[in-house]
Amino acid sequence: MSGSILGDIFKISTWGESHGKALGVVIDGCPAGLKISEADIQKDLDRRKPGQSPFATPRKEGDEVEILSGIFEGKTTGTPISMIIFNKNQKSKDYSALKDVYRPAQSDYSYDLKYGFRDHRGSGRASGRETAARVAAGAIAKKILAALELKITAYTSSIGPIEIDPKNYDEDYIMQNFLYMPDPEALKKAESYLRKLIKKNNSSGGTIECVVKNVPEGLGDPVFDKCDALLARAVMSIGAVKGVEIGSGFEAAEMTGYEHNDFYRYNENEINKTTNNAGGTLGGITDGSDIFLKAAVKPTPSIEKTQQAVSKSGENIDLSIQGRHDPVIVPRAVVVVEAMVALTLVDLLLKNMTARMEYLEKIY
Amino acid sequence: MSGSILGDIFKISTWGESHGKALGVVIDGCPAGLKISEADIQKDLDRRKPGQSPFATPRKEGDEVEILSGIFEGKTTGTPISMIIFNKNQKSKDYSALKDVYRPAQSDYSYDLKYGFRDHRGSGRASGRETAARVAAGAIAKKILAALELKITAYTSSIGPIEIDPKNYDEDYIMQNFLYMPDPEALKKAESYLRKLIKKNNSSGGTIECVVKNVPEGLGDPVFDKCDALLARAVMSIGAVKGVEIGSGFEAAEMTGYEHNDFYRYNENEINKTTNNAGGTLGGITDGSDIFLKAAVKPTPSIEKTQQAVSKSGENIDLSIQGRHDPVIVPRAVVVVEAMVALTLVDLLLKNMTARMEYLEKIY
Amino acid sequence: MSGSILGDIFKISTWGESHGKALGVVIDGCPAGLKISEADIQKDLDRRKPGQSPFATPRKEGDEVEILSGIFEGKTTGTPISMIIFNKNQKSKDYSALKDVYRPAQSDYSYDLKYGFRDHRGSGRASGRETAARVAAGAIAKKILAALELKITAYTSSIGPIEIDPKNYDEDYIMQNFLYMPDPEALKKAESYLRKLIKKNNSSGGTIECVVKNVPEGLGDPVFDKCDALLARAVMSIGAVKGVEIGSGFEAAEMTGYEHNDFYRYNENEINKTTNNAGGTLGGITDGSDIFLKAAVKPTPSIEKTQQAVSKSGENIDLSIQGRHDPVIVPRAVVVVEAMVALTLVDLLLKNMTARMEYLEKIY
Amino acid sequence: MSGSILGDIFKISTWGESHGKALGVVIDGCPAGLKISEADIQKDLDRRKPGQSPFATPRKEGDEVEILSGIFEGKTTGTPISMIIFNKNQKSKDYSALKDVYRPAQSDYSYDLKYGFRDHRGSGRASGRETAARVAAGAIAKKILAALELKITAYTSSIGPIEIDPKNYDEDYIMQNFLYMPDPEALKKAESYLRKLIKKNNSSGGTIECVVKNVPEGLGDPVFDKCDALLARAVMSIGAVKGVEIGSGFEAAEMTGYEHNDFYRYNENEINKTTNNAGGTLGGITDGSDIFLKAAVKPTPSIEKTQQAVSKSGENIDLSIQGRHDPVIVPRAVVVVEAMVALTLVDLLLKNMTARMEYLEKIY
Repeated sequence: MSGSILGDIFKISTWGESHGKALGVVIDGCPAGLKISEADIQKDLDRRKPGQSPFATPRKEGDEVEILSGIFEGKTTGTPISMIIFNKNQKSKDYSALKDVYRPAQSDYSYDLKYGFRDHRGSGRASGRETAARVAAGAIAKKILAALELKITAYTSSIGPIEIDPKNYDEDYIMQNFLYMPDPEALKKAESYLRKLIKKNNSSGGTIECVVKNVPEGLGDPVFDKCDALLARAVMSIGAVKGVEIGSGFEAAEMTGYEHNDFYRYNENEINKTTNNAGGTLGGITDGSDIFLKAAVKPTPSIEKTQQAVSKSGENIDLSIQGRHDPVIVPRAVVVVEAMVALTLVDLLLKNMTARMEYLEKIY
Repeated sequence: MSGSILGDIFKISTWGESHGKALGVVIDGCPAGLKISEADIQKDLDRRKPGQSPFATPRKEGDEVEILSGIFEGKTTGTPISMIIFNKNQKSKDYSALKDVYRPAQSDYSYDLKYGFRDHRGSGRASGRETAARVAAGAIAKKILAALELKITAYTSSIGPIEIDPKNYDEDYIMQNFLYMPDPEALKKAESYLRKLIKKNNSSGGTIECVVKNVPEGLGDPVFDKCDALLARAVMSIGAVKGVEIGSGFEAAEMTGYEHNDFYRYNENEINKTTNNAGGTLGGITDGSDIFLKAAVKPTPSIEKTQQAVSKSGENIDLSIQGRHDPVIVPRAVVVVEAMVALTLVDLLLKNMTARMEYLEKIY
Repeated sequence: MSGSILGDIFKISTWGESHGKALGVVIDGCPAGLKISEADIQKDLDRRKPGQSPFATPRKEGDEVEILSGIFEGKTTGTPISMIIFNKNQKSKDYSALKDVYRPAQSDYSYDLKYGFRDHRGSGRASGRETAARVAAGAIAKKILAALELKITAYTSSIGPIEIDPKNYDEDYIMQNFLYMPDPEALKKAESYLRKLIKKNNSSGGTIECVVKNVPEGLGDPVFDKCDALLARAVMSIGAVKGVEIGSGFEAAEMTGYEHNDFYRYNENEINKTTNNAGGTLGGITDGSDIFLKAAVKPTPSIEKTQQAVSKSGENIDLSIQGRHDPVIVPRAVVVVEAMVALTLVDLLLKNMTARMEYLEKIY
Repeated sequence: MSGSILGDIFKISTWGESHGKALGVVIDGCPAGLKISEADIQKDLDRRKPGQSPFATPRKEGDEVEILSGIFEGKTTGTPISMIIFNKNQKSKDYSALKDVYRPAQSDYSYDLKYGFRDHRGSGRASGRETAARVAAGAIAKKILAALELKITAYTSSIGPIEIDPKNYDEDYIMQNFLYMPDPEALKKAESYLRKLIKKNNSSGGTIECVVKNVPEGLGDPVFDKCDALLARAVMSIGAVKGVEIGSGFEAAEMTGYEHNDFYRYNENEINKTTNNAGGTLGGITDGSDIFLKAAVKPTPSIEKTQQAVSKSGENIDLSIQGRHDPVIVPRAVVVVEAMVALTLVDLLLKNMTARMEYLEKIY
């Protein structure tokens, strides 16, 4: 197996390289009867595609998705949904110069070690471009979740040292700026910070936060398939992510039990928690609270500033990677985090349908 | 599925509740010809078992493992290995008082929501006691890894606000203290900190670091089965873990590309990296560098200090959980982290055997 | 993986050797809230256990099952159910004489080829004794199916050349005779045939038929997970089975389309088929018709009559396997077929709960 | 899940409907370094495609395959291989007349029961056209097997009542006739038989045999993943197959142990069996003998001869399906059987690489 299949019920199988003919995804296990159109998917793809912002690579890709199977008269049929995105701009650049170079913080070296050779053009399968297929599948997952009124919101929570201030949080603002930040003040500082880095031919890291509201109870399974464990895997599988927190995350390590425990209060015929350090799960199973997670994203590895690299045959190289790359991966990764969260939750949602005998009686 | 099976080739299936008759694990997919004995496994179980330290619950459990199948004349046969640990102390306490109480930061509430009812005795399946089965399986995984000279070392890196100082790092010291800390000075402070919390009927969080040395190249698969993604899932599946970092982790978010990129140098006929911010993988695939990960562990939720809880039927309760619990989960979780890392790496090691056509020719 | 895990949602993981300490099974994914007791399981185990009939091996095994986890106050909790059967009679015989012999039609040779060595005692993991674990898991699967009023009936349809006559079919008679035949006349002939073979130190093959009534619609998935494909795999995985038919089976090959097609008629507000050559599925998906399958079982390979065998080191041997073995495997395999059918259907039943968007709305 | 993913290591994910835009397959887990071209795949597709014989439907489809990913400079890269076949002739017919009709022996009714509605055009996902994707994947599997000199040969062994005579078996003749029969005399009779049926607007069933030579030892795993069990599932998953036999098959049921057991003889430094009733496996694991299996194929359900059908709304219909269909499915299914056998064996071959500790040392 080459690691490109995810999910137990809602299974996605992605494929494609940065500079191949196309990339795509097959979804096996989408329930029948979901209304879906290419426009539903395109909307999310457009948030990820390059060439749209002063803070993103100018590579021109329309990233137009085409549905090839599994939809009939506007609804899913229950059979595999195949989606394809043709690469249109893949021949524009000559990659032969980098053919035998191991660029720092890229997968060139490890792919060669694993497979003996590699498709070196634009990182091949290891390109961030691969995430377009995840976003397409994630858009369908979101549509299922939306039918249950579940809502996923991800946003940029920091760029380098610039962090958002929770007091300024404005959800509506997220989609109104190129960096997908919910805080107009932090945005200004981040833009200024990035412009300086661009001038220095350098790049920045950052963080992404994701909140899920109106989460059904019971998602996640004990032991290895805890909701938080599967979310961590899904989000950490995004190439640039180096850390994942659920709820209180690393702060929990410095807290006492009395500080960290979320107390319960019963009022207005509901059990509620006074805090949400847990981040939405107890024992790995959702309890109806909001899910809260945070991801650390490393800086774009491709920079023009000269670095120490090495060639396959063992020559030390001073490498300056020409061309303009994303000065920060974070904004384009926001919708990818949403997709990975959606894909994880849909799979858990479907699995949880089999958790109780009384559910069988509701269906059969 | 109830989430208790892990792995694609080296599959483990764990079972058992805190206060049931026994708990155990079945391993399906262990290669034939591995020398293994109950003593190999007991050694790790003894590091996790309760009642051994002033900083652990005094529950008396020998945690003696018995191998029931899959071993013949001291070697694995290639067929399932079943291991069992009988619960000996499970009837010593009356849990009926907590039968209908939802304790803060425990799984009581979410299990009831998911399954409609639960085995309430000592948290049932959600008890940390479940990890004994992981440790038993992990000990076998480690034995396979040891045959390839791969070595996993986990240790306590902080208790509450007390962090180890890398300058004081002494690997040998880890196994010589109850808190599994590699820094004698930090240990003293941590012990003092914990004693104060015990007096206040409170508990502490902390962090665990894990280093893997002599890692074979090529472990991990592109996209969803990246080595770091699977490690994150495995470690986050430990009940108390709230965050996982690989390599630079959350620090990466504040760094520039030039700072974060690990440069290459070729010397003495080897390709080396000048730093290891990546933490052992590139594009999710190991490159021979050390794997480095860190986990945040929340404070023990069971504390005697009075908390606000609620009953199943909706009464607000002032809850003081009697009996002495672990004042900190971290030390007993160190060997569990090692187990989860070992289980993940063994599975990737076995999968990687199928990655190249030339490997087929070596075997057939 | 060593092939001992079956199922996608209702996953069973079996373990144990013929002459080890015990054998057992872990079920991961049984819905919560099912009433189950050891007696429910013992009932089926007793149909398989040895020593009960003049036509079965006299090995004494009580095959008493013990449930170790996953049941609380008489109901499944949704967490793994572990069941164990201790081997009580495993030391009664010295197997060292056969240690290096490859017996005809047994797995001795292939296990040595695959694993390099083997547990030779009583065929180790390859013993038919392994099926006790399947029967235990199957009993729980049947209990779920019974809640939906689905009923599985298997029986002996032939012993060597003696076939049952459909005209004599008496379902009640199946459980009243040692050979589990539904036809009293065929039974007499079969008994006589077997007695002659026993005298000649030889053994017989036979067939088993299985009918499933009151099957819910929609079980099975297109392409590879067709209901009939998964049933074929499940039944063919019983060691002695050499062929499987669904519906018309091999007769279909000689028929014309007009003869074979099951016509539809609508009457009394129902769509019905005038025949059932399909055997219960269309395109691999159940349509509410009875499932009908048939399995061919080879003769018991262990016979006292002298055969040509070979030793591991390459000596030709005249082998007479001492001790009384089952003169025919069929009767003891009847309940194993039922178990395999039940396990397959339960898994499909649970998976089918996720097939439609409208089912989500029924549950969430 | 919708049943369109097969395999544990060499995973294939197929998609597409009879009258959609295209159909295809993604292979996840093909080892890197295999030389493969579109021509390798086209060769097998051409054996399955329609319009080539007087005994096949004249639908015009070039079935031209295009590889979209996973191959670089003529070799597999170890990442997913995506293959697509565009449907070119899908709009030539108006299917609206059959929109609400349940045709006998087709999946119309069961798909409606399962999913609530269906893509009715040419049976949608349930069309035999789906097998083109299997054949494409199978061609790559065969290429891997060929590297180990393993050879799979399937052929038509009967058409209706006309069976081949083993004495006339001529392997070279198989590819020289439209019916893929290895016996020129049987061919003549079969052609004559089919011509008569065509005149009567009827169709025929038949059987396919498959022999695998030069099989590596050790393929297959104990208990549920026996080589024969997985072959049975794979072959039974072909829509029209109603029965599968391994080795002696249903004849085994009438034999005695002494007749059925394959005796061993040691000569010329090799262990050999004097017969091969087992059909290539012992205890489900290959021992180096030829694998032999046989499948029963039902008659083509679509016939012009008037049948009794029913509409969705409950009207009884006299149905004559216009247009020329395959008078027999068998010849076009021969290469599909080969594909399913190849896919099963490749997956077992890759899994068996992890069966022994000594194999790890060969690779690491």
